[in-house]
Amino acid sequence: MSVNEIILNMAQAARAAAREVGRCSGQVKDQVLTDIAALLKEESGFLYAENAKDLETAREKGLSPAMIDRLTIKESTIESMAQGLLEVAAMPDPIGSMVRMWQRPNGLSVGKMRIPLGVVCMIYESRPNVTIDAAGLCLKAGNAVVLRGGSEAIHSNKALGQVIAKALAKNGLPETVVQLVPVTDREAVKELLKQEEYIDLVIPRGGEGLIRFVVANSSIPVLKHYKGVCHAYVDQGADLDMAVHICQNSKVQRPGVCNALETLLVHEAEAQAFLPKVAAVLQNDGVEFRGCPRTCEILKNAVPAREEDWPAEFLDLILAVKVVKDMDEAMDHIAKYGSLHTETIITNDYGHAKRFCREVDASAVMVNASTRFNDGGQLGLGAEIGISTSKLHAFGPMGVEELTATKFVVEGQGQVRS
Amino acid sequence: MSVNEIILNMAQAARAAAREVGRCSGQVKDQVLTDIAALLKEESGFLYAENAKDLETAREKGLSPAMIDRLTIKESTIESMAQGLLEVAAMPDPIGSMVRMWQRPNGLSVGKMRIPLGVVCMIYESRPNVTIDAAGLCLKAGNAVVLRGGSEAIHSNKALGQVIAKALAKNGLPETVVQLVPVTDREAVKELLKQEEYIDLVIPRGGEGLIRFVVANSSIPVLKHYKGVCHAYVDQGADLDMAVHICQNSKVQRPGVCNALETLLVHEAEAQAFLPKVAAVLQNDGVEFRGCPRTCEILKNAVPAREEDWPAEFLDLILAVKVVKDMDEAMDHIAKYGSLHTETIITNDYGHAKRFCREVDASAVMVNASTRFNDGGQLGLGAEIGISTSKLHAFGPMGVEELTATKFVVEGQGQVRS
Repeated sequence: MSVNEIILNMAQAARAAAREVGRCSGQVKDQVLTDIAALLKEESGFLYAENAKDLETAREKGLSPAMIDRLTIKESTIESMAQGLLEVAAMPDPIGSMVRMWQRPNGLSVGKMRIPLGVVCMIYESRPNVTIDAAGLCLKAGNAVVLRGGSEAIHSNKALGQVIAKALAKNGLPETVVQLVPVTDREAVKELLKQEEYIDLVIPRGGEGLIRFVVANSSIPVLKHYKGVCHAYVDQGADLDMAVHICQNSKVQRPGVCNALETLLVHEAEAQAFLPKVAAVLQNDGVEFRGCPRTCEILKNAVPAREEDWPAEFLDLILAVKVVKDMDEAMDHIAKYGSLHTETIITNDYGHAKRFCREVDASAVMVNASTRFNDGGQLGLGAEIGISTSKLHAFGPMGVEELTATKFVVEGQGQVRS
Repeated sequence: MSVNEIILNMAQAARAAAREVGRCSGQVKDQVLTDIAALLKEESGFLYAENAKDLETAREKGLSPAMIDRLTIKESTIESMAQGLLEVAAMPDPIGSMVRMWQRPNGLSVGKMRIPLGVVCMIYESRPNVTIDAAGLCLKAGNAVVLRGGSEAIHSNKALGQVIAKALAKNGLPETVVQLVPVTDREAVKELLKQEEYIDLVIPRGGEGLIRFVVANSSIPVLKHYKGVCHAYVDQGADLDMAVHICQNSKVQRPGVCNALETLLVHEAEAQAFLPKVAAVLQNDGVEFRGCPRTCEILKNAVPAREEDWPAEFLDLILAVKVVKDMDEAMDHIAKYGSLHTETIITNDYGHAKRFCREVDASAVMVNASTRFNDGGQLGLGAEIGISTSKLHAFGPMGVEELTATKFVVEGQGQVRS
């Protein structure tokens, strides 16, 4: 079979499977999730053996130790995948629940019922645990899913796919509810992105290059985020110790992730007191400061910032710093350079907190809290399948609910329209 | 200026205006809506004169009387546009409201705040009242909007655009909150559909050809519906008089619209009693029956249905009719030929009503009610900007709320992530 035929067959099978998983009970779906969790442990020997093949190729190709670490399935990886599945199983079933219900003057009851999206396609790189996380969330939401992982994890992903298929079959669901694409070249991705008749949503997860490729080639709606250029604004009158603590956590706790702090904005009335304070702590953690001219006057060891530092997602121990004359200038800066991801204000001013929340355009706006909280688990959504920085359908962390839609249900006693 | 420059300038101006209208108060937005309603009446002489130019061109081109009627601005058109605006103004402001709020164990308050989408682009044909309806709904939801109406209504639309601009300016908002594209060829549409940096959502409204053109050429998310192939299923044991009444209303009340009935499915146990009953009433209304072989045995004057009648959106006094052996066969038929628009069951069986609601895939599923109720006004959403048959972001009638998104708002007292 050609790649085109393989992909078309998978997409059609997914559409057919979507109808079955869409109407099956929450009990069955939760049993599948629980069974996958158990099978991951029972079949760990098989998983380690298949994973070893990927690790060998990775070493031959000279992948970095960090990459190889992300690729490795160890006992703790299996433990955390299984734990995640059990947490998703423990959540209430969203499907079939009525979001709200109201009466019309003519006696009709009108409500919105939560329903699956249908067929979801995940396109991702490297980490094999995404295979389990994505399958679990999509299944809970009653969707069929087509998974296309990266070539470097193909053996691991296929092995995980077999474990999932076994759990589906055991519970009387078609194995095509979760399918793993066996071809890993970009042509296969392009073919997937043409199946708008059978696939309802594409979620790419990986580097900006992968995401831009998917957006450029897809005729199917895409939920995506490109990058996180997150700001903290330290307001006049803010608690400066709290501000240092939040900046340190936002910047240093895990600098390589999308909700890490990239730019610090400081009210001019606090700059003289605050900048040396925050620099002492963060420079001790190895952070390089790239400052505006006023910052560099105060912090003699700061590097002068260039224009390209303001829109930069450093993903590293680098912080751009700018002194602003007021909150409006800070919000203008964020509107110009922000990426709609996460923005935080450190303030004691009630009116400023309200205005910042209302007016700043980002998937999560924080007051006196670390940017690192923009995460499905931290915000209480349970597991997440990604963070959307586009506003259509979902904006921010996407959990189970974001993998559903609603339909109108209208219950009458013979009403007609006049 | 070239078309490209005109469109780029408009898109950039809309993005800038979106920030201003997005943060302005509900009071100001409602005043703009009220002022437009008043100005429509005050400037009716100007509107009739500009509309007359379009009508003259339409007559020269030999447009049908039905088309010319849709194009005409009369006193009742102005009255109904003004009334619609006042109804939207009377609705609560969705922007800034918290959808819900919860506490995290670490004391963070997390909520979802309703926000505007940003910039909406409407692409539509013929009826000038869409200009006012779309502008009103987008404005209420805090969005900037770029309107591109058809060439046949260009003078009317420009005149309406001037009225809107006057009301915006009077209330201190930029006139660029609502912009009318002055060029009406398809090249201008193609240019609009490339502005993904500045436009967040495209809503096409018109024939299937226009919608397919927009989908094929857009790099911006599109909310659309292609067609409505709506079914009624008459279950075993249904109240047959009610079923006749519902079928008549669904099919005959306004046959040319997307929520009109196109196919009737009848349980075999009721066919002998029901089909002559429904045929007597609907054939009296001029409806042609196209039946499956079993239907044609019972109704001697029915035309035998061909395969292409099952997926057809007749938009006319034609009804496809099929006898089925049970509800499962009816649901299979709907899954195969339906368009995810509106489906209704006429039944007295509680379990069947529940299963039909749960399992049928459509933006609105009805029990013992006319398909004609799938409409924003009828379902209690207020005015609608269209009906979506795709599940991403909105599914079914789209009112003000469907023109918004939500962002996370996180209020802390210095929390950091551990």
